[in-house]
Amino acid sequence: MKPQKFKEFLKDVNQFHIKPEDGIANLISNLSNTGFNAKRLALGCKIYEEMIDDKECVKFFGLAGAIVPAGMQGIIFDFIQEGFIDILVTTGANLTHDIAETLGYHHKQGTLKANNVDDVKLNEEHLNRIYDVFLPNDVYEGIEDFVSGLKIPDDNMSVSSFLKFLGEQLPKDKTSILRLCAENDIPIFCPAFTDSGLALQLGFHHQSLNLNHFEDMRKMVDLAWDAKQAGICIVGGGVPKNFIMQSLQFCPNSAKYAIQITLDRPETGGLSGATLNEAISWGKVNKNAKLSTIISDATIALPLILWYLQNVRKDNK
Amino acid sequence: MKPQKFKEFLKDVNQFHIKPEDGIANLISNLSNTGFNAKRLALGCKIYEEMIDDKECVKFFGLAGAIVPAGMQGIIFDFIQEGFIDILVTTGANLTHDIAETLGYHHKQGTLKANNVDDVKLNEEHLNRIYDVFLPNDVYEGIEDFVSGLKIPDDNMSVSSFLKFLGEQLPKDKTSILRLCAENDIPIFCPAFTDSGLALQLGFHHQSLNLNHFEDMRKMVDLAWDAKQAGICIVGGGVPKNFIMQSLQFCPNSAKYAIQITLDRPETGGLSGATLNEAISWGKVNKNAKLSTIISDATIALPLILWYLQNVRKDNK
Amino acid sequence: MKPQKFKEFLKDVNQFHIKPEDGIANLISNLSNTGFNAKRLALGCKIYEEMIDDKECVKFFGLAGAIVPAGMQGIIFDFIQEGFIDILVTTGANLTHDIAETLGYHHKQGTLKANNVDDVKLNEEHLNRIYDVFLPNDVYEGIEDFVSGLKIPDDNMSVSSFLKFLGEQLPKDKTSILRLCAENDIPIFCPAFTDSGLALQLGFHHQSLNLNHFEDMRKMVDLAWDAKQAGICIVGGGVPKNFIMQSLQFCPNSAKYAIQITLDRPETGGLSGATLNEAISWGKVNKNAKLSTIISDATIALPLILWYLQNVRKDNK
Amino acid sequence: MKPQKFKEFLKDVNQFHIKPEDGIANLISNLSNTGFNAKRLALGCKIYEEMIDDKECVKFFGLAGAIVPAGMQGIIFDFIQEGFIDILVTTGANLTHDIAETLGYHHKQGTLKANNVDDVKLNEEHLNRIYDVFLPNDVYEGIEDFVSGLKIPDDNMSVSSFLKFLGEQLPKDKTSILRLCAENDIPIFCPAFTDSGLALQLGFHHQSLNLNHFEDMRKMVDLAWDAKQAGICIVGGGVPKNFIMQSLQFCPNSAKYAIQITLDRPETGGLSGATLNEAISWGKVNKNAKLSTIISDATIALPLILWYLQNVRKDNK
Repeated sequence: MKPQKFKEFLKDVNQFHIKPEDGIANLISNLSNTGFNAKRLALGCKIYEEMIDDKECVKFFGLAGAIVPAGMQGIIFDFIQEGFIDILVTTGANLTHDIAETLGYHHKQGTLKANNVDDVKLNEEHLNRIYDVFLPNDVYEGIEDFVSGLKIPDDNMSVSSFLKFLGEQLPKDKTSILRLCAENDIPIFCPAFTDSGLALQLGFHHQSLNLNHFEDMRKMVDLAWDAKQAGICIVGGGVPKNFIMQSLQFCPNSAKYAIQITLDRPETGGLSGATLNEAISWGKVNKNAKLSTIISDATIALPLILWYLQNVRKDNK
Repeated sequence: MKPQKFKEFLKDVNQFHIKPEDGIANLISNLSNTGFNAKRLALGCKIYEEMIDDKECVKFFGLAGAIVPAGMQGIIFDFIQEGFIDILVTTGANLTHDIAETLGYHHKQGTLKANNVDDVKLNEEHLNRIYDVFLPNDVYEGIEDFVSGLKIPDDNMSVSSFLKFLGEQLPKDKTSILRLCAENDIPIFCPAFTDSGLALQLGFHHQSLNLNHFEDMRKMVDLAWDAKQAGICIVGGGVPKNFIMQSLQFCPNSAKYAIQITLDRPETGGLSGATLNEAISWGKVNKNAKLSTIISDATIALPLILWYLQNVRKDNK
Repeated sequence: MKPQKFKEFLKDVNQFHIKPEDGIANLISNLSNTGFNAKRLALGCKIYEEMIDDKECVKFFGLAGAIVPAGMQGIIFDFIQEGFIDILVTTGANLTHDIAETLGYHHKQGTLKANNVDDVKLNEEHLNRIYDVFLPNDVYEGIEDFVSGLKIPDDNMSVSSFLKFLGEQLPKDKTSILRLCAENDIPIFCPAFTDSGLALQLGFHHQSLNLNHFEDMRKMVDLAWDAKQAGICIVGGGVPKNFIMQSLQFCPNSAKYAIQITLDRPETGGLSGATLNEAISWGKVNKNAKLSTIISDATIALPLILWYLQNVRKDNK
Repeated sequence: MKPQKFKEFLKDVNQFHIKPEDGIANLISNLSNTGFNAKRLALGCKIYEEMIDDKECVKFFGLAGAIVPAGMQGIIFDFIQEGFIDILVTTGANLTHDIAETLGYHHKQGTLKANNVDDVKLNEEHLNRIYDVFLPNDVYEGIEDFVSGLKIPDDNMSVSSFLKFLGEQLPKDKTSILRLCAENDIPIFCPAFTDSGLALQLGFHHQSLNLNHFEDMRKMVDLAWDAKQAGICIVGGGVPKNFIMQSLQFCPNSAKYAIQITLDRPETGGLSGATLNEAISWGKVNKNAKLSTIISDATIALPLILWYLQNVRKDNK
């Protein structure tokens, strides 16, 4: 058999136009026949769509980065609300910030005139900076009141069980990720939980607490083991990415769908920037998987993906 | 007078939701009160909108990167068509690729199965790779036929005059940037013109050609000098960014509006990644200018900005 | 009092030459009067030198990234051996890889001819890829033998106490980080310990294990609390960076010296790329601290810093 | 014939140590058996060494970025002086900055206390900022005096011929790149010459000047055509990279050795971040070429490469 020529697999790049009345689905459809990251974004949208349509697929969502401070709490909330996330793995920081917003506190943004920040002055004004977002110190006092009053049922429960308990204690809120996950039985894993402001306060006020991290690890492996199909969406890498990936080694079919959104790069060997292809060597991602790595700030890509998914789902109803 | 407190300038980060029926203007409006690059993208859209509304503003557009190969020829075409660009500065590569598409050739994209590229095999198949886009060698033969047949009126004309002449020789096309600029008298500057496939062919077939690059330089300075107000949109940095910036030193008010879209970073001192603030020290950008640097692949940001501008303009009509 | 002019603080950039017989101390001295990352690297070297000379300074070292796979195990070993690290915070992956090398297994590098990797074939050959480094599956079998045979004295000990115990079980080795830290009483913290191959095997073979992560968190806060002066060196960000930073909020003087080596960028708001200045707003870094962020792959910067420190220490003896 | 197994090509990663008395050649030798960018840097050093030892090899050197402002003028000078560069392609900015230093002016660096820059104040003090380097406005006045007094022998000479003339007018200096190249008959190409402060002043003071850019383009193609072997070292990408690459298409054997130093990334399709492998598809780099892309700020990598080359050459004498 003659080896196939590469050129037989090529088709024309789409030199498209946008009309004002176009919807997001048009735009993504157009971008899917272009190149570079526009194509990767479109591909990511379509892979996520397939993940949702595949009823056997368990959707793992890894969320690192200061997503809630950036104003993306409602976006993640809706990803969960719409059923686009089955298992959430995130950082203690995002959970701390979710509680802050849920308790009625707010992250703050600078207006144009005040954009030249001086961190010494911010410190004097008790404002903690997260790039161009600011978190007043008193937010932590409010969280502390909430945390110190908790009646924790079991000092040795797993972190994910504790997070479900925690979500149940929070006021009903239209954007609380913790509350929504608790209500909908979406497990939240947080392998580096003690690396967070929330855990610091828990550790000081509940000295006997010894949340069982190993139980979470085994629970996560079981979830991967039981998944007929697995799909993953990785935002920003970090511990959430690795925790999902290490569990997928135990998934019979490994991941069939894989999307990641990151600005990290592969050449330094860190996991956050590692290609999705690399995970095939480890047996974490299937050799026939559909893959897309979107090189983008997640605050741009995530709202677009959600918006796309909402639209194509609406059309299918 | 008591020094102002930073916290007086703060407002809440917007924890927004998206509805399927939302338009791009809603999304951008929501993003403008978030953080990180989502906010920068929204700010960039709004600054461009102001640039358009400011009737005294001359809009300089610097375009580096493989924009046409990526399928963005129609997007740039519409930026010009809509009147969003007054002066275009770009690379010889983008012009070469624009001619290729206008003459009926096409950039190619790989399909999923053929994504594992082997550059040695591509070379054997006469396919030139631009990341995940492919340009068959015979495209250059087509361009050569076009170039060798040109009757160039003046060997010593400026590059921009030559590019206008060139645009007039091209077939009418709904996406040709060169043709559209020629028709609409939008000057195109290309300071590194001889660094391109187009110029190589010109140089071989028209040995007496000596396009006057210094005349372009002075013409560009005159345009900046005469601009009552200046606005700039820089895509990808490079020579187009610097050429616009060096001319703006001669603009009486320097740039009042400035947007740049790049993934380059400032810490290595290269101009492509330099902040827009740095240009204030040089007198290229006004100290009161509205600025936004969007850290993004332009293939994602440019279509969104165009779409936004089309929508807000439609609403204003 | 007249406000000071910026130009009074300026001195000439050093246009230096290198002689073959120069030592690393000459080079760093020359680079310290240049610009961009050359200057930052030199500054980082000199700040680390001051940290060592400051007898009151507790040196926190955060180590993320695939440092051991990259061949940097001996470099980290020598940093510890020389007394340049008082407290190590790292990832479970680096510890897993340290055990692998200590047990006599090896990470592998591809030779030139085999550089075109196909992850599907790697998977078939049971080779796990970490960018351009490969880890054969049987390494994990060796680690499993070691792990399954451990007689763990206390299921509820802290992770750092467990890591000391673990180091003591390892064979004496001239590069084992775990063994050396155990011998020298250098605490190792690993907040996301269950996010590692080592922990997976521990969790399967020692089902009753519930290492107390909260105790580590409090222990780390105590170490920061007791530090008369604090200095930090952050490699690659991630959980190690945040865990050190959150503890430093409890250090009376916060960090007086701070170095970080990263390729992440600040504009997306993630902690790994956050500037050291940002940490001043949080009270983690002192407003008078000496700071340097080196934008570099750590595999280039770390050996140079170690080499420099060895040389200046030798000269001072 | 049984297909070869990947694992047969593997060897152990080198877990090396550094001794204070080690030389740069030891370090590079050690790094060449590691991973990630440490390995790439070592490989780059060794490829450059081979380029020098290959007497048939013409060494093309592309230099973009603010190299002279960063204090690297002496490094580039010594690369040329040592015979490590046969053809230099660079930006007008680097030439402008080279003239400034050669005429006795200096780029300036801020001291620690003045590091918090305010670009508005810098502008008031007539200090132009290049990241953390500053160029006083009066430097340009000095250059203008030099430029306005030039007696240019031929208005239509090529840019490279003009740059040789220019170098001859400069005072003898131990760091002037222009002067040294003129003395040693090393051609300097500058395809985007009019995109520079130097050209602006030439254009104003010598209105009839029309340097022939097309002649440079053909001259460069001829040099590539005549090269029995070609080696390239690309610093920072940009026009210098593309100008070398487009010429190499005409080199009978294309490039046999290729090194590039950059922090740009490939996924956005821009040439600066493009892999060296991609250039194989275009026939610019040979399919059997030795390649290394070093992801690093050039201000760190370049001095190390020079230092290495000086040492191995000294040993060979």
